Amino acid sequence: MCEANAYVVKDGREELLMESVDIIEPEENNAQYRLVSIFGEQKIIRGRISLMNLVDHKIFFERTL
Amino acid sequence: MCEANAYVVKDGREELLMESVDIIEPEENNAQYRLVSIFGEQKIIRGRISLMNLVDHKIFFERTL
Repeated sequence: MCEANAYVVKDGREELLMESVDIIEPEENNAQYRLVSIFGEQKIIRGRISLMNLVDHKIFFERTL
Repeated sequence: MCEANAYVVKDGREELLMESVDIIEPEENNAQYRLVSIFGEQKIIRGRISLMNLVDHKIFFERTL
């Protein structure tokens, strides 16, 4: 399985947002993203993607206000 | 290895942009993305992410003008 973990970067620290993310779908003209894990859990993050490192299974978001 | 393939969706068809993508980094306030493959190949795509399906190893982009 090649899911990734999603993190929110805040003040230079990585906070885990969701493990085992399968689907990432932009919403509202990329102002927010809907994440769905391989377990079917869903979360919305208001923000933008700052970096994805797929081999390391990491996706980083920055929140926007 | 958990890299993904990047596709550009055009007229409902998926065109392969890059295989074995490792890094995806937004540039110019998310107006374009820099892709780096596990082989070190780099490409810039001007557009937005339309969907990511990590378990299926697929990332879809839509070009913008």
